Amino acid sequence: MTLKENAQKGQITDWMEKAAQTERVSVNRLCEQIAAGEVIVPRNKNHALENPVAIGRGLRTKINANIGTSTDASDISIEVEKARIAVRAGADAIMDLSTGGNLAEIRRTIMQEVPAVIGTVPVYQAAIHAAKNKGGLIHMTDDDLFGVLEEQAEEGVDFFTVHCGVTLHSIERLKKEGRLTDIVSRGGSFLTTWMIANDRENPLYEQYDRLLDIAAAYDITLSLGDGLRPGSLADATDRAQIDELIILGELTEEAWKRGVQVMIEGPGHVPLNQIEMNITLQKRICHQAPFYVLGPLVTDVAPGYDHITSAIGGAIAASAGADFLCYVTPGEHLKLPDLHEVHQGVIASRIAAHAGDIAKGLPGAMEWDISMAKARKALDWDTQFRLAVDPDYARRIREENAPGSEQVCTMCGEYCAIQLVNEILKK
Amino acid sequence: MTLKENAQKGQITDWMEKAAQTERVSVNRLCEQIAAGEVIVPRNKNHALENPVAIGRGLRTKINANIGTSTDASDISIEVEKARIAVRAGADAIMDLSTGGNLAEIRRTIMQEVPAVIGTVPVYQAAIHAAKNKGGLIHMTDDDLFGVLEEQAEEGVDFFTVHCGVTLHSIERLKKEGRLTDIVSRGGSFLTTWMIANDRENPLYEQYDRLLDIAAAYDITLSLGDGLRPGSLADATDRAQIDELIILGELTEEAWKRGVQVMIEGPGHVPLNQIEMNITLQKRICHQAPFYVLGPLVTDVAPGYDHITSAIGGAIAASAGADFLCYVTPGEHLKLPDLHEVHQGVIASRIAAHAGDIAKGLPGAMEWDISMAKARKALDWDTQFRLAVDPDYARRIREENAPGSEQVCTMCGEYCAIQLVNEILKK
Repeated sequence: MTLKENAQKGQITDWMEKAAQTERVSVNRLCEQIAAGEVIVPRNKNHALENPVAIGRGLRTKINANIGTSTDASDISIEVEKARIAVRAGADAIMDLSTGGNLAEIRRTIMQEVPAVIGTVPVYQAAIHAAKNKGGLIHMTDDDLFGVLEEQAEEGVDFFTVHCGVTLHSIERLKKEGRLTDIVSRGGSFLTTWMIANDRENPLYEQYDRLLDIAAAYDITLSLGDGLRPGSLADATDRAQIDELIILGELTEEAWKRGVQVMIEGPGHVPLNQIEMNITLQKRICHQAPFYVLGPLVTDVAPGYDHITSAIGGAIAASAGADFLCYVTPGEHLKLPDLHEVHQGVIASRIAAHAGDIAKGLPGAMEWDISMAKARKALDWDTQFRLAVDPDYARRIREENAPGSEQVCTMCGEYCAIQLVNEILKK
Repeated sequence: MTLKENAQKGQITDWMEKAAQTERVSVNRLCEQIAAGEVIVPRNKNHALENPVAIGRGLRTKINANIGTSTDASDISIEVEKARIAVRAGADAIMDLSTGGNLAEIRRTIMQEVPAVIGTVPVYQAAIHAAKNKGGLIHMTDDDLFGVLEEQAEEGVDFFTVHCGVTLHSIERLKKEGRLTDIVSRGGSFLTTWMIANDRENPLYEQYDRLLDIAAAYDITLSLGDGLRPGSLADATDRAQIDELIILGELTEEAWKRGVQVMIEGPGHVPLNQIEMNITLQKRICHQAPFYVLGPLVTDVAPGYDHITSAIGGAIAASAGADFLCYVTPGEHLKLPDLHEVHQGVIASRIAAHAGDIAKGLPGAMEWDISMAKARKALDWDTQFRLAVDPDYARRIREENAPGSEQVCTMCGEYCAIQLVNEILKK
């Protein structure tokens, strides 16, 4: 039985117990939420995962970090180190999006070395295998694709991003729309290329039952990908995006009937004033399935700083109910991230998630800030560092800029407002 | 006559013409807005400022960069370089907040070397002079304070932050409130210390007419400071903050009667879900006077990353109608910023301001993103760099991470979604 089937029968498992403890929520309520599909706790039955990561309504907003090689940079040891850094910085899940080098070996090594919830986009491996061995990704067969899904399932991948909503019909919608940036999802572009070249429907849509068979057999969570997500603000929330969302809503219910856990992937590039609406719409169309957003980036013009553009969007999304934020690194749109940028991306996303959690009134979220505020007031620097989202970095900044007095910092030196007021209010 | 008096009489000046051209708005409308107080165009009549910076309703959100020495770091040449870097990165105004070294010399040098709208907090100089020469800032006299105001006015400072809303009554309110972090405004802490020690009312409040005399004589804009702004999320939007805001609203109308331009300073540390309300409240209480916010920071727990916490808050504030964002540098709460951090702070604020401008539908704002999206779609890297918020940095990232093919980037290498889709959709 899958976790969802257990939940649907009201059978509380150890995994649910552990997840409820981690989240400090009632296990009965959590079980109901898993049954209803509004919370997921991804774990492949073949994955010896120790720590549950529950994602969904009323829970702490979680963070995913994408790592992985490309054809321009394919060193396994660097990708393993990125995964380690991401987890150490506070990522709740890792997606291996490798497209360069020996994909199976990279994935297996990461899963072996780094204990974390792991996701992949299986169409990458199938398409790239066809590109390398058959002269083009358009020569990928259905069996190639489902073979890879089976292989990765067997290995213990916890969630699959599957772009099932890219259909011949939705591509027509996209063309009719007249987008600025058409398709920017890599999986979406692989499938679209394959579909147009072969004049065939998306196998992940057409043979969705075959996909569900695999997901149900291994208890894999489906992350229904947004292959048509907007790649620019101008394309945000257009008919093509919403058409795909509607398909994902339909597929969500199909998956639920088979006891398969589902989350929905969302944009992307979205103007600030459209973010809340996007979350509300997804929650309604997909019947409260957890929402996993990439960013969203609130402007297109800041390459080099897209951890900031996406932290802005991510915070608003989280406050409006997005459940899972995919980090974006500073150099998105320019390069594959290096180790430092992976760290930066995770920290920026954690800031966004936490700001959202405070805004939506998550029990306990404000306590962290209250503790920090008390440490600031007490000019207790050790506690400030311990509580900082990035303790080592905060401590290093201060050590490298030591003030004349241990009490204050170099910003105000001897004219520290807190120190002055502490003294005068004591009187 | 002051600019506002001219506007109140419907007399359009060259300065208004130039401001209207820069903002691409009708000069008649701008004149009406200046008359009504909802737009300001700060310039001291003694300042040979060339480029007007109009701040207020319906205009592009502007950015201020704080620079200045402290007792722990007081090298003039570094502060001049910070001002230059800030302006080059796109800051619309500079505040010199120096508290270490020869304050007058630092200010004069910055004004001489860097052509920008300049603001100061005159109480710093008066209080620090008393601390140095009279054995304590509590020995500052009214004439010391007004003497500094007169001196800085004469020199051409364009706007003064004056914490007129810190009154004996509002300090009582604050005490009754029972705050976590009491007072974190440096000017607010100086005045509070002085008032409690001397058991006297705030001279900037009590002798507000004397302040208005100076402001009117030199056409200085008053930035009514929020000396009681919250220093932590837990203190946000409390009775003390709102009590001060009410006083600032009253003082706004007094200033307007004297033809003095006014903006209102705002928080600070504010939970994401309270930001829009704070803007709406300020606009109502202060009769649409422009709102100048510091951040706001949406969490207290991210020292080292406060350019990000404040970019989140700033973007939401700008979208809700805040007119002027004061940048926050990464190391706020830990140190005085260095050159790199000044640059980072300005860029983060510009991202926030622009995201807000798009959200509030500022005419022309989206065009920038549309141009960038077109350049991305065309894989036209030179245009992408030219349009980037930080062109040099974007170009450098790409040059340091050169992909195998000139068309793409190292993120996807040969599996670039844009390139794939461009090819398949051409067919």
